[in-house]
Parts: sequence; structure tokens; C-alpha cells
Amino acid sequence: MKEIINYINNIEDKIISYRRDFHRYPELGWTEFRTASIIAKRLLELGFEVKYGKEIFSEADRMGVPSAGILDSNYYRALKQGAPEEFMEQLKGGYTGVLGVLNLGEGPTVAMRFDIDAIGVSESTKENHLPFSLSFNSSNDGIMHSCGHDGHAAIGLGVAHTLANFRDRFKGLGTIKLIFQPAEEGVRGAKSMVKAGILDDVDYVLGNHIMADEENGTLICGTNGFMATSKLDVSFKGLPAHAGAAPNEGRNALLAACSAVLNLNSIPRHKDGASRINVGTLMSGSGRNVIPEEASMKLETRGQTTEINEYVKTYAERIIKHAAEMHEATYSISYSGEALVGNSSPGLIKRLARIGDSLGDFNCLIEESNKSIGSEDFTYMMDRVQKNGGQGIFFILGASLDKSQALGHHTSNFDIDEKVLVKSAKLFTLLTLDIEKNCRE
Amino acid sequence: MKEIINYINNIEDKIISYRRDFHRYPELGWTEFRTASIIAKRLLELGFEVKYGKEIFSEADRMGVPSAGILDSNYYRALKQGAPEEFMEQLKGGYTGVLGVLNLGEGPTVAMRFDIDAIGVSESTKENHLPFSLSFNSSNDGIMHSCGHDGHAAIGLGVAHTLANFRDRFKGLGTIKLIFQPAEEGVRGAKSMVKAGILDDVDYVLGNHIMADEENGTLICGTNGFMATSKLDVSFKGLPAHAGAAPNEGRNALLAACSAVLNLNSIPRHKDGASRINVGTLMSGSGRNVIPEEASMKLETRGQTTEINEYVKTYAERIIKHAAEMHEATYSISYSGEALVGNSSPGLIKRLARIGDSLGDFNCLIEESNKSIGSEDFTYMMDRVQKNGGQGIFFILGASLDKSQALGHHTSNFDIDEKVLVKSAKLFTLLTLDIEKNCRE
Amino acid sequence: MKEIINYINNIEDKIISYRRDFHRYPELGWTEFRTASIIAKRLLELGFEVKYGKEIFSEADRMGVPSAGILDSNYYRALKQGAPEEFMEQLKGGYTGVLGVLNLGEGPTVAMRFDIDAIGVSESTKENHLPFSLSFNSSNDGIMHSCGHDGHAAIGLGVAHTLANFRDRFKGLGTIKLIFQPAEEGVRGAKSMVKAGILDDVDYVLGNHIMADEENGTLICGTNGFMATSKLDVSFKGLPAHAGAAPNEGRNALLAACSAVLNLNSIPRHKDGASRINVGTLMSGSGRNVIPEEASMKLETRGQTTEINEYVKTYAERIIKHAAEMHEATYSISYSGEALVGNSSPGLIKRLARIGDSLGDFNCLIEESNKSIGSEDFTYMMDRVQKNGGQGIFFILGASLDKSQALGHHTSNFDIDEKVLVKSAKLFTLLTLDIEKNCRE
Amino acid sequence: MKEIINYINNIEDKIISYRRDFHRYPELGWTEFRTASIIAKRLLELGFEVKYGKEIFSEADRMGVPSAGILDSNYYRALKQGAPEEFMEQLKGGYTGVLGVLNLGEGPTVAMRFDIDAIGVSESTKENHLPFSLSFNSSNDGIMHSCGHDGHAAIGLGVAHTLANFRDRFKGLGTIKLIFQPAEEGVRGAKSMVKAGILDDVDYVLGNHIMADEENGTLICGTNGFMATSKLDVSFKGLPAHAGAAPNEGRNALLAACSAVLNLNSIPRHKDGASRINVGTLMSGSGRNVIPEEASMKLETRGQTTEINEYVKTYAERIIKHAAEMHEATYSISYSGEALVGNSSPGLIKRLARIGDSLGDFNCLIEESNKSIGSEDFTYMMDRVQKNGGQGIFFILGASLDKSQALGHHTSNFDIDEKVLVKSAKLFTLLTLDIEKNCRE
Repeated sequence: MKEIINYINNIEDKIISYRRDFHRYPELGWTEFRTASIIAKRLLELGFEVKYGKEIFSEADRMGVPSAGILDSNYYRALKQGAPEEFMEQLKGGYTGVLGVLNLGEGPTVAMRFDIDAIGVSESTKENHLPFSLSFNSSNDGIMHSCGHDGHAAIGLGVAHTLANFRDRFKGLGTIKLIFQPAEEGVRGAKSMVKAGILDDVDYVLGNHIMADEENGTLICGTNGFMATSKLDVSFKGLPAHAGAAPNEGRNALLAACSAVLNLNSIPRHKDGASRINVGTLMSGSGRNVIPEEASMKLETRGQTTEINEYVKTYAERIIKHAAEMHEATYSISYSGEALVGNSSPGLIKRLARIGDSLGDFNCLIEESNKSIGSEDFTYMMDRVQKNGGQGIFFILGASLDKSQALGHHTSNFDIDEKVLVKSAKLFTLLTLDIEKNCRE
Repeated sequence: MKEIINYINNIEDKIISYRRDFHRYPELGWTEFRTASIIAKRLLELGFEVKYGKEIFSEADRMGVPSAGILDSNYYRALKQGAPEEFMEQLKGGYTGVLGVLNLGEGPTVAMRFDIDAIGVSESTKENHLPFSLSFNSSNDGIMHSCGHDGHAAIGLGVAHTLANFRDRFKGLGTIKLIFQPAEEGVRGAKSMVKAGILDDVDYVLGNHIMADEENGTLICGTNGFMATSKLDVSFKGLPAHAGAAPNEGRNALLAACSAVLNLNSIPRHKDGASRINVGTLMSGSGRNVIPEEASMKLETRGQTTEINEYVKTYAERIIKHAAEMHEATYSISYSGEALVGNSSPGLIKRLARIGDSLGDFNCLIEESNKSIGSEDFTYMMDRVQKNGGQGIFFILGASLDKSQALGHHTSNFDIDEKVLVKSAKLFTLLTLDIEKNCRE
Repeated sequence: MKEIINYINNIEDKIISYRRDFHRYPELGWTEFRTASIIAKRLLELGFEVKYGKEIFSEADRMGVPSAGILDSNYYRALKQGAPEEFMEQLKGGYTGVLGVLNLGEGPTVAMRFDIDAIGVSESTKENHLPFSLSFNSSNDGIMHSCGHDGHAAIGLGVAHTLANFRDRFKGLGTIKLIFQPAEEGVRGAKSMVKAGILDDVDYVLGNHIMADEENGTLICGTNGFMATSKLDVSFKGLPAHAGAAPNEGRNALLAACSAVLNLNSIPRHKDGASRINVGTLMSGSGRNVIPEEASMKLETRGQTTEINEYVKTYAERIIKHAAEMHEATYSISYSGEALVGNSSPGLIKRLARIGDSLGDFNCLIEESNKSIGSEDFTYMMDRVQKNGGQGIFFILGASLDKSQALGHHTSNFDIDEKVLVKSAKLFTLLTLDIEKNCRE
Repeated sequence: MKEIINYINNIEDKIISYRRDFHRYPELGWTEFRTASIIAKRLLELGFEVKYGKEIFSEADRMGVPSAGILDSNYYRALKQGAPEEFMEQLKGGYTGVLGVLNLGEGPTVAMRFDIDAIGVSESTKENHLPFSLSFNSSNDGIMHSCGHDGHAAIGLGVAHTLANFRDRFKGLGTIKLIFQPAEEGVRGAKSMVKAGILDDVDYVLGNHIMADEENGTLICGTNGFMATSKLDVSFKGLPAHAGAAPNEGRNALLAACSAVLNLNSIPRHKDGASRINVGTLMSGSGRNVIPEEASMKLETRGQTTEINEYVKTYAERIIKHAAEMHEATYSISYSGEALVGNSSPGLIKRLARIGDSLGDFNCLIEESNKSIGSEDFTYMMDRVQKNGGQGIFFILGASLDKSQALGHHTSNFDIDEKVLVKSAKLFTLLTLDIEKNCRE
């Protein structure tokens, strides 16, 4: 174990340079062409069996995929930005995930998940913003790794290096799977990988998040309290008419939408726990003197249990349907994201706490927390594994920098203490080793 | 003609005493048991062929009929208040209209319509209210002849006396029909009489309204501009639930109703003319801490044309349906009244103007007016006759008393100058005589 | 202790006959003239110092008091139904609570609260409804003890008898106060008694509820999870106008109310816990063809914490104000009830559990439960005592009869197993005795 | 008169080439830098006294002026597209109107108004679209003369040529004013010119519209029935919050906006005539999981009378205010356009009808029509002149091309029969001549 720890400490620079490279070339969900192809190439070099592209996704379950035009232009940007061409063809159409498999011996299968997408934020160009002052800030306008997934991807590669190097130490396991997942933002990507079956044989699944707004040096071993959520894209279509000359000839899509919004916000609370509904955006109409023909909304529902979320979602669908038909409009609903509730397995939490404690890397070690970090589609993976009788864990590492600054997630000056990267890589590796030991005993 | 005028002047006291008797015993729509039986008896005595009860109504088209219990109790009240028993049996169930027929010779058929119902207003007991100081105020709590239909009924009987007396002068006509209609308030009664066919052979149909808020001595020969209207009774039914313990288990009928109200008021204006919508009453809920299970509304639509009213009504029905279903409630709609648009025939207007002029009874003679007097179900009769090639007219007589008081229709201190009664009886009679003359020429 | 238990068992018939007498003459909140005067008389006979009427209420804090006319007519009904006249004068105006005080020695003060009001439900007259078949069903139309407060009052008198008889055993205490509270339904009465100061010197306060829908033989020692709540009576006042002739001249109170309802239901969820809002009733409008002049609503807010309830209430007030003014209507809000959150003190819970266990009266003994029994204004008393450093407890006794019937609270066939009465009286008495012992040690 | 007609026929090519030049370089309201500077230059050359820029506008009354950035960039585009530089400086800031004055003798003042702005439509590039096949289609992306104002401007110059040539014939008049008005679209420009006083001395004001969807060869001498209108830009500002983690911390601008929309559409009809309200566009929200911080709407009100429009506008302002405050949002309203009702003066209508008849240019001559062509800010000019005791007229000329195509106003394939241009120029000129004759008599 010492040896492994030393090894990881020694590759810290490599891990950091991975992170900075990804940071410089951030890619939005389903367009991680450069990121995924680089990861695939590296895993192959390290001796992993590598699957990527269509074979690890259920096509019908990908949510919130951009238009063909956007996929294309991002594909070519990736090529220009150094994506290894030989790995690109298979990613076409936005199948931008990678699965690295290490076949070992007889024994349980351990999977680890690293999400790799960036978000639509313009990166700060202030001098006190480290990525800018060290010149690894985003090259892609309006896109930024402002949620730490660049770090997650780098941690994954760090773990890959370590496992490749210490392969023999993990012989008690059957297989190790490193899952590099696209489109976690908007909780769009995990379901499709789960539905493709890549978690079906997994006994243990591990995920984490590094947090800029959590005290540096904190480890939360088991994060629970994710809310189940659904993301709905709704559009109403009516009929335009001149608002002065023939108001009765229109079918007012905005009236439909506004009736929907008021009633959606009125969905009754659920007796069994917290629920949420939000219409985040509404865009409607073409001109002041035209009865609005179209209206589109982005909304989301949440529930403290999957059942509560289903209740809100079903009620919302009913409201949308009847708000439309009330004004003779038509409507369509598409789902652009979904996540489940999730709870880390108590056994894994205890083990990770022991490991965290022994490492001495953490000032503050919390076993379990309902710390609200919104929704996470890692819950799809954990749910699949737990339902098959396995265990899952999702842990959080605090990586705050200067406390005097607001460096929150999804802001333009988001940044993390890069020391968190090796800490996380150790936890992933040592927990896997612990699982291996345990199953040998 | 002189003779006829003199005759009518001479029976003024009789006409007034009819009016005061009806005023003392006002009866709501479809419960005019006493009023109708007295009229039937009198018409028979005067030599008219009399039809009344079921034979002059289309059962399916009676709207807004009270419950059996109310019909019953009002039936017995009528008996106690001196209704002639031998005419009552046939009126049971609320068929409280009378048709008096005078068969004359060969020639056209002239019909006159007199509406006879009162409304739900409590009569004033102030000393300056004439019906009270002269002791002919309402004996029936909460019911009052506050729209002048007591006068209309009395005018009809005055006309009946006159026609009976001068029968020979009208030989050029085929038949004269005096229609005493129940339930004009809420525009509930006329359609059912029209559907029963009693207007099918009519060539000329005459109606009028005496007005307390129109300058005394004014005659408007042809009143047009009635709006088409529909009266809807709506009820929503959801599911109750404890608002604290299980809000999600209810189906909120009040939410459905309030969504309906806002959207009903939002029905777009119609390019072709005026429209109206009003939810006049909404009653919902049983207790503060219970999700409301039921909601009921009384609403009405209007349109400057029958098409506009249809547009509003159809839109309203759609809103009600989807407001209910949005919240998983059920709903029902029943129609409690309907009236059409209507325009007096120019030929009759001209003739009446000439007669009015010659009489010298009127200070102010207006040929035609769109004076908004709301809706009138006389329009059903006029529509039937005009569609069959005949002519119709509806005229208005001002009968205001003291201008310093607000004596508006549907108020507790409504009153009219009783001199208007003979004026009206003369107009009905002389216009009929004019038609007779004309068809002889 | 044995002796006390035996004594209580021996007066079971007396306690039951109290309950049946109260059951036969149920009285709504603030009109418990007969109930309160009988209790006052009996407490005086038993040697208690008795306070009642205005002296134990803060006038400004009484909520939801009926009109003077209703108070008067119920006052005379009480006289006719045998209320002892000499105690009535002081109750006039609806100050229908009683406080029995037993001054003992030096030591802490223990208070017990018994609520005494009935509710507006018509009692069943089915043969299988015991109160009916045994002829002690309600004599007051539309009013019924359908929530068990007749039992609570009887338990209080049973405790009074016992304390009077064993007075010497309680000498270690300073004072015992028996509080007979009016108007618990609608959470209207407790606040006013607390504000009058009668809980200010209390160290321990005890309350209970007998439940028809909780398994017979169950004891829940500490019921927590009451939601804070506010009850609002809202009225909107606009301006009427004829809906056909002059729609623009009205100020539509119903439009204001419906906008309010939709927005009230849309008040955002609170991050810190459960919230509730319900508009339970809405009544608006006078006639179909009149723009509605008035609208009145009964609504309630709830919160898992007092702060959450405040948040909802404040938001609701803002919505009501602006919904009114949006349509140029005026509005008024009055509070007809309020209750706080409340949690029983752990020390008392443990003691009561021990006593319950030792009695052998209970099949099922639950220490603590969040069982939602809605809101309780006993929380005002508990809050006052706990804030002063004292302790409070609210316990629940299951008293279900035939399981095959729905005998829920607030239904017309509500009934309880009367055996619960002595069980409760023992718990009140023995817990007080335990407190006494404890303070002597 | 013959001479004048011949002259105008002879300059048809020149007029058409003006129109085509303006068509090729369309400019939106308040950015007509090229158009206005060319007009100013030409009028000066023709001997008119020319005023333009700030001196003919009331700054406070310009509505819907674009941002400084847009004004600037369009200014430079105009320079690049051949605007005469010496006239540009004075137009800076969007004062893009021109007034040509011809001082004649003693007598009344006649003004003619020509509106010159284009609209935001992309011009068709189909072969059957004449402006494209003849290569004078729009050079400015997304902007097009799709409402015929290029024609109006050309007519104005045609009239200017004619007047300059026949100056002596108009000596009976005091002054002739040719007003070239910017920003008629959105009814933004006229009020500001009126408020600057340039209509204050005018006795007769003439305006017209050429129509692509009115039968070729039709002349409507007096178009009435313009509705008064107001154009409101509304924005709501609340507070964003995470919709999952802290929904109660937001102030939902979308809820405010949707409440406003439903209530705006619910503004009661007005008894005195037609009213309109339309929320044409609503844009709100930044992200699905954020409580919407902002919402902006473009809406318009209309009324058959100026009073009705005021009623709707005032009601709308009240709704907006209270919908915002209901949700603790702030709001702002700005007016981006206003027009009045207007009726052509009967005297001028009769004269024009006579002239139209004598010309033989028209198959179909309609004296007066309420043909709804929406709203027109020419009404501001007409109102000012008529209120000063003068007369005004607005006439319409049908100029439809191929009937088989939909070539409606504000569409990308809008086009007119250019023969209408000289017809219109003749009407303006000959009516002015007729006025001159008349005042001499």
C-alpha cells in the first residue's frame, strides 16, 4: 500500500498536466470528442482493453443530444485541437464515452466512473484566476470546465496508470472497469450507459466529486440525499393571427404556456417528502402585434424519492397537455435528462472512512452527509449495481482555494486546489485494493 | 279606432288591478302557477280557446327548471293564494304558460307575447315605495315583480278584453294568439314554446317591455341590438384530502375552477363585433383544511351575432373541460338559458311609429334603437317568424317615475308609472288592427 | 399508587356519564356555555379554586369568535339545556374556559389541559351508532362531539375527583392547574389563555388526545411533528356592474380571488422543510350577469418550523394584497387560528413510558412519533412552558372500536371505546404523582 | 391640370428609380440615415427650404429608439452605401426625418406625410420575386421594404418635383410642407414630430398607404377605423436561486410575468366599443434549474376610441405593477409606440373622390371604409390638424400583383405594382391644387 501511495504521489505532475490539458479544451456534453479520444488512446497504451463510441451506449436513452450541426462543428474543432484521428471516427454522432477494462482473475468486478464534460460558462480572464495566469484557460469561447470534471477525468487517468503499474496486486478481482462518462451536466449521459449493459456485471461501483466550495481537506465518505429529477423540454404550437385585426383567429401558445406555468407551480406538495418544480425558461412569440404561435419551456421536477418525482412529473405532463388543448394548441414533451435518488452502501462507506483516516490527507472526515449537491446521474449506475445485489459509493473531496473569493461551481472564476487530484486517485485505488483483499479473505 | 281607444281608457282600472294582483303574488320562472291559472281562467271567460300546460312546451327545451321540491311547494302556495283549482292540475311540473287563441276568419296570424315571471329580489317596505304604501307589495318573501312583467301580464289581459269586445273588427285576420310566457328571466322559457310549434303558423309577432329607467312618455318602436347569449351552469368534481396530512391525494376542484375563470376571461375578442363572458358566481370547498372537492360556477356568454356567441361558448366549453382534466377532476355543463340576436322588421317599425304618433301619448318617439337592454328570449319567437317569411317587432315604453330616485330594474324599489299599461295595450291592439286593415287592402 | 388506580377504576361510571352528558349537548368553540359552567360548578364543589370567564383570556388574542348574535342564542340554549345559571353571567361574550387551581405546598406547578369544544358535523342516527342507540346523541342540530373533546373534558373531571380525593399525596408540588380550554378546533383558543398569563408560572404542562382511528390499546408517549399553522379569512371587495351592458365598470373580485388562488398554490417550496398552503373555500358573486363584487376565502398555511409557516404566511399576504389591487379591489385579512410547532420534552416522555408500561393497560407502547395529527394549539402552552425552562408532553391514546367501520374524526359516525377515559385519567394522575415524587427526591 | 398629369406621367421612371434605390437599401425606424439624407439633398436641389434632424423632433417623444451602438453602426453603413456626407451629421442619434417647405403666398398651409422606414424581414431570393430578378432586392440582411414605405418616399419625391415645377400654380396657398417621417412601423415616429410643432400651422394634412393586398386599381378615399394603440415594453426583475437547493430564496420573475399575461388577457371588454390586448412576446429565464430572475414582454393595447385604449392601458399598467410586487419583483414599463384613432374629414373625402373619378385611373372607387389596416401614427398628425380646426385625409391605393400569390405586407415576398406610384403622386398633387382653387374662390 505504501508503494502504491508513493507511486501516485510521484505521478502528481502527470495528473495535473492531464487536468490542465482538458481544462484548456473544454467540451460540452456529447461533444467530448477530443477528451474521449485522448482518454481512449492513453488507456490503450496502458494496456487496457478499450471500448468506446456506439458500443457502450443505448442509443434510445441518450438525452439532450445537440443537433447534428453542432456535433459536426465540435468534431472538427476537436480535430483541430489535437484529437488523435484514429480514435475519432467511432465517436461520431456524439458517442463520446470510453470504457477501459482490465481483466484480472476470478472475483468480483469493480467499476469506477469519471465524468468528463464541461459547461456553458465563459472563463474568467482576471489575473488572479490561476488557469488564466498560468495560461491553461479555456480556448473554447463560452465553454469552461467550471464544475471540476477536468479533474475527474485526470483522476481517472491517474488511477489507470496506477492500476496498470500494479496490476498483479489486484488479481483477487475479476475485472476492473474505468468508465469515462459524457454529459453528466443536465444528468443526460449515465442512463444510456447503464441501459447499454456495461454495469450489469459490476459488483462495486465507485464515483466521486471534487468540490470548490467545500473546505479543503474534507472527505465526505458517503454522500446521500440526491433528489430524483427529470428534465423536460416542452413546446407549444398554436396559430398566429394579427392581434388587432383578427384576434379570434389565433391559437395563443403563450396563454397556454402561462396557464401551464401557474398550474405547474401549483402542483400540491407530497406528504412523503420534498418535491420541486421549476420552469427555468420560457420563450414565446414573434412580434408584438401577432398572437403568439409558439412557446417553449425548459423545466425540471425533483423528488426526495423516485416516487415523488414520478408524481410531480406525471402531474406536470397532465397540466402541459391540458393547458395546450385548452387553447387548441398542440404540444410536445421531450426528456433531456433524468437521475434517480441514491444512497451509498454502508459497507463501502465504513471502508472508505478507514482508508481516509489511515492516509492522513484529511482534516475533516465525515462518514455520511445529505449535503445537497443537487442531482447526479451516477445514481443510475449505483441503482443498477445495488439492485443486482452489489454496492456503490459516491464520495466528495473538499478542494477550496482562497476562502475570501466566491469560487462556486458554474461560475466563471471556479477553481480548485489541484492537490485534491492525487488524494482522490489514492482513495479510488486503495478502496479497490481493500475490496480485493476482502474478497480474498 | 276612436272607439277602441276609448274602450281601453275605460278599462284602465281593471288593467291596473290585474297588475297589482300579480304584483302582490309574484312567482319565479316555471312556478307561475297562480298567475298562469288566473290568466287561463280569464281568457276562457272572454271567449278565447285556451291551451296551457304541457301541450304548449317542448319538454326537452325548457331550461333552468327548479327542482321537483320547489315546484311542489310553490304549487301549494299558489293554491293557498287563490289560484283557481280547476286550472292547476295541467300546470303541474312547471308548465306555467298560457296560449289564448281567437279564431277569426281567413288571413294572417298575429301573435303577441307577454312574459309573466318575477325575480328573486326582496321588495322595499319604505313608505315612499308605492306598492308598499298602497298595500299591494309582495306577499312572497324574497320574490318581487321588479322587472315589470306584472305589467306585461296585465297588458295582455287588457288586450284580451279589447279583442273580445271588438272581435268583429279583426275579421280580416285568420287567428290572433296571445302568448303568456313563463321564465323570461334567465332567458329560459321562450325556446321551449317555439320548439313546441306554437309560432310555426304565425305571420306577425309582437312583444314589448315597459321600462322604469327610460324617460316616461318615450316610445322606441323597434329595439334591436339584443346580444345572443348562453347561460352555463358548470360543476367540477375532484377528490377531497386533508390539506396538511395528504395534499397530494386530493384532486383540487378549486384549482381547476380558478384556472378556468382566468382563462375564460382571457378568451380573445372577436374581430366581427362585441363579445362578453362573465363568471358571475363561484362556490367551492367544504372546509379550510380540506382540498376542495367541488366547485360550481354560473357563467354567461354573449355575442353581437349568434356566431360570436357560439365562438365564445365553444371556447368556454373547451377551457372548462381542460381546466378540469388538468387537475384530474370531472366536470359537467348544463345550459340554463339561451337567447338569440334579434332585429325588429322595418315594416312593422314604420307602422308602429305612425300609430304612436297619431295617439299623442308619447313625448319622444324613437324609430329604432340599439339601446342595450341585455338579452331577451323573445328573440327566439321573432327569429322563428322571420325565418318563415313573417315579421316581428319588439317595442319599449318608458315609464319612469320620480327621476330623483334610482328605481332601476332588479332593485327592491323598482316601480313604474301605471299609465304606461293602457298606452301599451293600445299599441298592441292598434298595430294588430293596422295589420288587419293592410291585409284587407 | 395502587389505591389511586383503584379509585379511578371505581369512578369509571361517573367519568363515562360526564362524557355522555357533554356528548348530548355539544357546543362549538367559544359557545361552550353549558359545558364550562358545569365544569366550573363541579370543580368548585370538589374544592378547587376556580377561575373562569374574562379573567383567564387575553381578549385581543381570541381568534375566530362568532358574532354577538350567535353567542347570544347559544347562551340561551345553554340555559335551556340545564347550565347552572349562577356560573353563566361570567361566561357571557364567549369566555367559555375554566381554570381549576389546587394550591398544595412548596414546589413546582403542574398544569393539565383539556379541550372541550365540539364541531359542526351532524351526528349519525343509525342504529349501529352507539350514542344514538343509547340515546345520548347530540341534541344540537349540526353540532357533534366528533373529535373526542367530550372525552377530554370528562377525563379532566375524573382527574379533578382523584386529585381532590388524594390531595395529600401531591404535597410536594406547589400548585396543580386544570385548564379546560374552549375553541381548540380551528386552533383558536389556546393562544388567548397563554397570553392571559395562566401558563407563566407552570413548570410542567400535560395534554393528550384520544383517537378513534388509532388502534385501541396504543399509547404514544410523545407526539411531535405538529406543524405550525395559520388560519386566514380573506375577503375581496370590488364593484358590481352589469356583465353585458357595462363590463368595464365593474371591479371583478372573483378575478382577484382566482389570481390569488393560483398564485397562493404557487408559493415556492421551502428548502428547510415541509410547507403547506390550502384555499379550502371560495365563495364569490351574486348573480350570473353581474361582475362579482365580493369574494371570500378561508385558507390555511402550515410549516414544519414556525419560520417556514411565517414564510408562507407572509408570501400569502403579499399575494392577496396585490391580487386585489391588480383589479382595483380592496381586501381584508383576519386570523381565525394559529398554532406552533411542538415537541414533547424527552424527560417526560421517558417517565410516561415507564408508567404506561407498569400499568399494563396498553398493548402497544410507542415512545415517540411524528404521527401527523395536523395542528394543535396545545403547542402554544407547551412552547410557553418550555421557553420558561419547564417541560411539556402531549400523548395519544388509541381508542378505536370496530375496525370494519370508518369512524374517523370529524365524521358523523365518530365514536370511541369509552374504556380509554380511565386509562387517560390514570396517566395524567400518575405522571403528576411521578413529578411530585421526583421533586421530593 | 392636364399639364400636371402629363408631367407626372413623364417622371414615372424617375419615381420608380427612387423607389428601387430605397428598396435596395432599406433602413429600420430611426436609422433611415441614407434615405433621409438623400431626400434632404434632393429637396434642397429642388428649391425647398429643408429642415431635418433634431430641429423637427421633440426628443422626449421619440419612442422605441434603438441603442446607441445600433444607431452608430447603421450610420456607418449608410455612409458606405452612398449617403451624402454633408447631410449626415445632423441626423446623428437617429433624428432621421426631413421636412421640405415651399413658401408660396398668403393662404392655408397644406402638409403631406410620407413614411420612409423598412421592417425586420428577410427579402425573398426566389426568381419570381421581381426585386430579386431585377436586382434591386435588399442589400441589408434581415431588413426589407416589405410594407411599401419605399414607394411612399418615392411618391413624396415625385410630388416634390411636380410642385417645384408648377410652383406658380399653388400661389393661393401659404405654405406646402412635405414631411418625410421615420419609424412609422411600431407607430413610433409621428408623435415626436407633432410635439415638435411642425403641424401646428397646418390647415390640411394628407397621407396615404399603397397596399399589396388590396385589389389593383382600387382607391379608398377616406380610411377610418384606425384603432388607438399603445406599445409597451415591460421587464420584470426578481432574484435567481437554485431551484433544487433553495427555491424559497428566489423571486420568480416568470411567475410574475405569467400572472400578468393571464390577467392582461382578462381585462374586461369595454361597453363603448372594441378593445384589444396582446402580449406578443415573452422571454424569461436563464437556466432550467434556476428560479427565473428576469422576464421581458412586448405588448400592445388598442381601442376603438382613444378613451378605450386609455382604459386598457391603465388597467394593464396596474396588472403589471401588482403581478410584479406579488412576487417581490420589480418592473419597468417603457412605451415604444403610440397612435390615436382617426377619421378623415368628410370634405376632403368628397374632393378626393371627385378627383379620383375624373382621373380614370381607378376601377373601383370607395368613398369611405373602416377597412382595418391596424394602427397608423399619421393619426397624430391628423388629430393635431383637426383639433386646430383643419382637415385631414388618409387614402389607400390598391396595388396588388399576381393574385395567385400571397404577397401580404410584412412577408418576404411582398411586392407592389409600381404603377401605383404615379397614381398616388397625382392624387396628392391634384388634391392640393383643388384646395388651392377652393381657397381662392
